[in-house]
Amino acid sequence: MTAEIVAIGTEILLGDIADTNSQVLGKLLAAHGVAHTRSSTIGDNLDRCVAAIGEALSRCDIVFTIGGLGPTRDDITREAIAAVVEENLVTDDAARRAIREYVESRNFRWVDAMSRQAMKPETARLIDNPVGTAPGVFWEGNGKAIIALPGPKNELTAMANGPVKQYLAGLSQAAIISRTLRIVGIPEISVEEVVKDLVESDNPTVAPYAKTGEVHLRITARGKTDQEARRLLAPVASMIQERFGKACFGSDEVDLPTEVLQLLHSSKRTLATAESCTGGMLGERITSVKGASSSYLGGAIVYTNELKARLLGVARTDLDRYGGVSETVARQMAGGVRRTTSADFGIAITGIAGPGGGTEEKPVGLVYVAIAGTRGTEVREEKFRGDRETIRYRSTQVALIMLREELLRD
Amino acid sequence: MTAEIVAIGTEILLGDIADTNSQVLGKLLAAHGVAHTRSSTIGDNLDRCVAAIGEALSRCDIVFTIGGLGPTRDDITREAIAAVVEENLVTDDAARRAIREYVESRNFRWVDAMSRQAMKPETARLIDNPVGTAPGVFWEGNGKAIIALPGPKNELTAMANGPVKQYLAGLSQAAIISRTLRIVGIPEISVEEVVKDLVESDNPTVAPYAKTGEVHLRITARGKTDQEARRLLAPVASMIQERFGKACFGSDEVDLPTEVLQLLHSSKRTLATAESCTGGMLGERITSVKGASSSYLGGAIVYTNELKARLLGVARTDLDRYGGVSETVARQMAGGVRRTTSADFGIAITGIAGPGGGTEEKPVGLVYVAIAGTRGTEVREEKFRGDRETIRYRSTQVALIMLREELLRD
Repeated sequence: MTAEIVAIGTEILLGDIADTNSQVLGKLLAAHGVAHTRSSTIGDNLDRCVAAIGEALSRCDIVFTIGGLGPTRDDITREAIAAVVEENLVTDDAARRAIREYVESRNFRWVDAMSRQAMKPETARLIDNPVGTAPGVFWEGNGKAIIALPGPKNELTAMANGPVKQYLAGLSQAAIISRTLRIVGIPEISVEEVVKDLVESDNPTVAPYAKTGEVHLRITARGKTDQEARRLLAPVASMIQERFGKACFGSDEVDLPTEVLQLLHSSKRTLATAESCTGGMLGERITSVKGASSSYLGGAIVYTNELKARLLGVARTDLDRYGGVSETVARQMAGGVRRTTSADFGIAITGIAGPGGGTEEKPVGLVYVAIAGTRGTEVREEKFRGDRETIRYRSTQVALIMLREELLRD
Repeated sequence: MTAEIVAIGTEILLGDIADTNSQVLGKLLAAHGVAHTRSSTIGDNLDRCVAAIGEALSRCDIVFTIGGLGPTRDDITREAIAAVVEENLVTDDAARRAIREYVESRNFRWVDAMSRQAMKPETARLIDNPVGTAPGVFWEGNGKAIIALPGPKNELTAMANGPVKQYLAGLSQAAIISRTLRIVGIPEISVEEVVKDLVESDNPTVAPYAKTGEVHLRITARGKTDQEARRLLAPVASMIQERFGKACFGSDEVDLPTEVLQLLHSSKRTLATAESCTGGMLGERITSVKGASSSYLGGAIVYTNELKARLLGVARTDLDRYGGVSETVARQMAGGVRRTTSADFGIAITGIAGPGGGTEEKPVGLVYVAIAGTRGTEVREEKFRGDRETIRYRSTQVALIMLREELLRD
């Protein structure tokens, strides 16, 4: 069973809004084992709309359209579908009455053009819209189907999780289970080398996705029942975890900050941060996790050398001699924030995020990350490429990876 | 001049990620007067990729592809383009060397498959990627062009705003000038009321966009020359600025943190921050602006009451009596960080971001923002609705708005 999506809306093509509706439908299709093979976006133009829907219908079993079901003249989806299936448009009288009642109940003035929303190709039927006035349209013929859904996000979501879900559940023969494992500290290409045999397998499938500073491996298993799909998935997940060892962690919901906080929590350790070039990003990422307060105490943002000395006790002679971006200063920052806050671990980041401020000796992208704990202090030197945001993000990523490694060493 | 986008990535079709890259390119095309007529998303499948790129090229003048330029075997965009334009793939030796140098500089092991990223159709040329290893590909022939860009958001954005922008500027016949004005502290519906007459006009067009904590008004003027477009745009921009007064600020590049830093810089004042529930997000937003160090000193993240007392001198009796989330504590945090860092202004945020931790008296969303300056200390109480991220973001937004108002009062 294959499906395509055709999203209709000039505002998407102009970049005024991002098409997040297709993501909602895409997830739903994946969860029901329907292969989503292509999605297209076109503007509010009848000819292009007819062409896009017609092409999609020739390639797949179910075509979803999103948008263009409103009452105004640039809402042309109904006309386009009628043209594709070569039927006349007719008005559904019950739907027309229901729309009118709703409009008048909200004290809006009824305008005749509103009855456009009750129109449908002759053999199609309308799908009730629980949160708006525009009903959806369902057409079936030649073993294929067209399902037209409204564009406003809340209406699309309500209809996707209601009638569309029900329809897909009726079609679905297979149960599909997915799980994502995260790999840190190993580049994508090397990750792929290690799971080459699994990537080639059919069921479960394993697909690598590169993120900034980590690689995700998504395992998807298909079975006749949920249980069968789970039984197929489990050994592949174990195999991956075995092959990557400590570099592998997490599941769908557990990202790196969450993982680190869980490790801190279970070992009853506390953490404090000292940030220069990242200016609070590390603290922000850690505290984006709910319940972070059980292990994270806080720390200092020391954007100037003066504050590095004043808040963290970094030696002014070392700041003068080695500069704020140096191994020595990173080390003292980590130790200083650990001492000041009485945390078990102090993490420090100091570097040159750019675009200005780089020299030949200390180029943009040079970052020192230090972690101070009971076992002493470890400092890592990194030379990142990228813009200011990338360098800052990667710095926090390395800090979290170093802390995770330290916690796993226990 | 027409363009289409072909985004390549199974993870988009599965709904794992939303395709926000097409929005970035869509905006850029609109700004340069290139008609964006269709965008498509397909999976990592060579045949479908060849078909989609081929069809797009037959319909329009410029085809952009996004994604599938990585080193792994499911990165098939280079092969697909070569098949569409019927050329062999060859390796660009200089690019291969550059990629290898970068990989080794990061202490990753070189794997031969990485050189895949240096391949291109014979007559194409590679486009330098300033923030990642995968270069883009530019092919031209029969009066048409294919431009292949990498999928990671930061790489796509860097290349869109660099080489792609330059290329589009060279093509453009009509001059189109856009400018975004930002309005803070007024809800969208009221903003729209004030500019109703302008929203109805044709050239320049004025379009309102609601963002979290601010409303953007985008003015777009079209003329035969840049000069003509500018002449049309200027009076509308002035009119909007007049109508909104101090609530209106900024242009495309100047967001709220940038505006605040410019005001601090020009008045030679310095700033320090003290954050509880935002955990560093305010510092992160301020330091996301390059050159922030000229006015921003740093500050403290005080996630626990103990650190509020220890780092900022908040009275322990007040912490006991009023709790960490209170007007009194916010006031002392702002004063404390100002004193500790010798900054001209101290800003403090303390609140309950949720989802847990709320009580009837102090519900999730209760946030105190305080600003301490030469004129004394001002505290604002807010009751935000929304999830943890929204509450934290809105808190930093209020802090920046309060500081801006204080700076404009001078």
